[in-house]
Amino acid sequence: MALISFEKAAELLKEMDNILILCHANPDGDTLGSGFALCRALKAIGKKARVDCSSEIPSKFSYITEGIFNESFEAENFVAVDVADIRLLGDNYAKEYENKIKLNIDHHGSNTMFAENTLLDSSAAAACEVVYELICTLGVEVNKAIADCIYTGISTDTGCFRFTNTTAKTHIIASKVMEKGADIEKINRLMFETKSRSYMRLEKLALDTLKMYFDGRCAVLTIMQDMYEKSGAKESDTDAICAIPRQIEGVQIGASIKQKDEKRFKISVRTHAPYDAAKICGAMGGGGHPRAAGCEIFGSLDDVLDELLKTVEANLED
Amino acid sequence: MALISFEKAAELLKEMDNILILCHANPDGDTLGSGFALCRALKAIGKKARVDCSSEIPSKFSYITEGIFNESFEAENFVAVDVADIRLLGDNYAKEYENKIKLNIDHHGSNTMFAENTLLDSSAAAACEVVYELICTLGVEVNKAIADCIYTGISTDTGCFRFTNTTAKTHIIASKVMEKGADIEKINRLMFETKSRSYMRLEKLALDTLKMYFDGRCAVLTIMQDMYEKSGAKESDTDAICAIPRQIEGVQIGASIKQKDEKRFKISVRTHAPYDAAKICGAMGGGGHPRAAGCEIFGSLDDVLDELLKTVEANLED
Repeated sequence: MALISFEKAAELLKEMDNILILCHANPDGDTLGSGFALCRALKAIGKKARVDCSSEIPSKFSYITEGIFNESFEAENFVAVDVADIRLLGDNYAKEYENKIKLNIDHHGSNTMFAENTLLDSSAAAACEVVYELICTLGVEVNKAIADCIYTGISTDTGCFRFTNTTAKTHIIASKVMEKGADIEKINRLMFETKSRSYMRLEKLALDTLKMYFDGRCAVLTIMQDMYEKSGAKESDTDAICAIPRQIEGVQIGASIKQKDEKRFKISVRTHAPYDAAKICGAMGGGGHPRAAGCEIFGSLDDVLDELLKTVEANLED
Repeated sequence: MALISFEKAAELLKEMDNILILCHANPDGDTLGSGFALCRALKAIGKKARVDCSSEIPSKFSYITEGIFNESFEAENFVAVDVADIRLLGDNYAKEYENKIKLNIDHHGSNTMFAENTLLDSSAAAACEVVYELICTLGVEVNKAIADCIYTGISTDTGCFRFTNTTAKTHIIASKVMEKGADIEKINRLMFETKSRSYMRLEKLALDTLKMYFDGRCAVLTIMQDMYEKSGAKESDTDAICAIPRQIEGVQIGASIKQKDEKRFKISVRTHAPYDAAKICGAMGGGGHPRAAGCEIFGSLDDVLDELLKTVEANLED
């Protein structure tokens, strides 16, 4: 349960073989980019290594996984990437690998230190920044495939350098992997420019419900269960839609109400400073970050909207 | 009519005083960022300088212009920034300043070399990259206000580091201005995260017209004149909407048909490689770039759609 340096982490990896690298469940660009970049680097220094994840890897990430030879071997050493809490490996995996992770490479300040050794840089925008530095410490040459992995993690975790977690160092690492051939045209098109037809249909249905309140300072949209059926979209498609209300000019508090069951709704709140999404959702039994938070409410849609608007109003008046 | 080096450009500026800096008409983040960054740098070395533009500066750029003291003086020296062709200064300005521009600082490969001296780096994603280097060559310390200007030009001209004009150097300059305090949260929110309510209404009307053709390989949306009235949006709001058809999964050729007059339509085409938007629009009497091009067609909406689809079909078959 120790925090270790890049040098010590590189030393540990050099001592290991037959390494299983574990990504978190519902994998995103950062955990996959981290896992496959590290896997490629370990193979380059003669190790047997493969990547595993309890969820299926979305097809849009196929360029990250392709061309890598997934050796079969009995895993002896377990390394986690971008995993803040063992539970995030997914139910079965979390049980299977509890107390077995020798090294965890992460960037979450909230890391629970579940691994024997943790390489943590909480100032990094992405775990891929940490993995990039570790690969350099290992003395492995960053090739195009590794560069694509690292760029993917950095660009997805920063919303393509838009979010406030982006630092000067983020840009420096981006410049380095571009010099190594990262295909930013392809990656950014796949990550940010491609919307499925079912997503487009769901977005249109959701936009039809958009309403403004309190002189346009609050916007709310609603996603009901039947919209998934009508559009063919899944709940995982709603992330981008939940970002829309706050994007409207003049809106300080944006909210999305998603129906989970007939009488159960999830509310997502996004705010602009100084309005505190965590405080708003906290008042309704939830929590989160200052700019993005959530909660669950039971009742009819009217009840839920009523409670949301009362809470928003109290916060706007503060 | 000479191409000059950074050193020579810095020398020229040091010899000048009472400097009027000209931005192009319909100013964007790059020409304004360039103009105001240079103006602030020149004032820092004791020059009288101000920025001018033939169009009104959109209010979202107020953080770039604020706090700068706009001295009144009789201009003696004229410098253009991000201006590829004298005509882009706008009608009256183009006439007034023809043959008067002593220095033009630009990044367009298509620059017509209309100025007495041109500092040109066509590999730069933004004129602000060139201005940044020039300010460093001048020996002026980049402060927060200059950093905000430079970051604005770079992020707007690269779609926040997404477009293929982004280079490793673009990221390096971004990291440098972040270290000088560029407020990327505020800038990216204003430039990329804010949609007006009228834009949202127009987008919804336009999405209602979206149709797919050729097994989903082509998507077309239509913006009719009455939609501007219904939504309160302007034609300048349509840029982001025209990008939507190509963003749909599986679409190789995306098109938008905008009604200009009752029987006159502008078509914008965006493609994914290898489909050539310039070739498609060329066949309909227009032109442009490989991935984005346009043309105008006279006729009824049905006629226009018919011609567009025929041309698209021929290109998909190629």
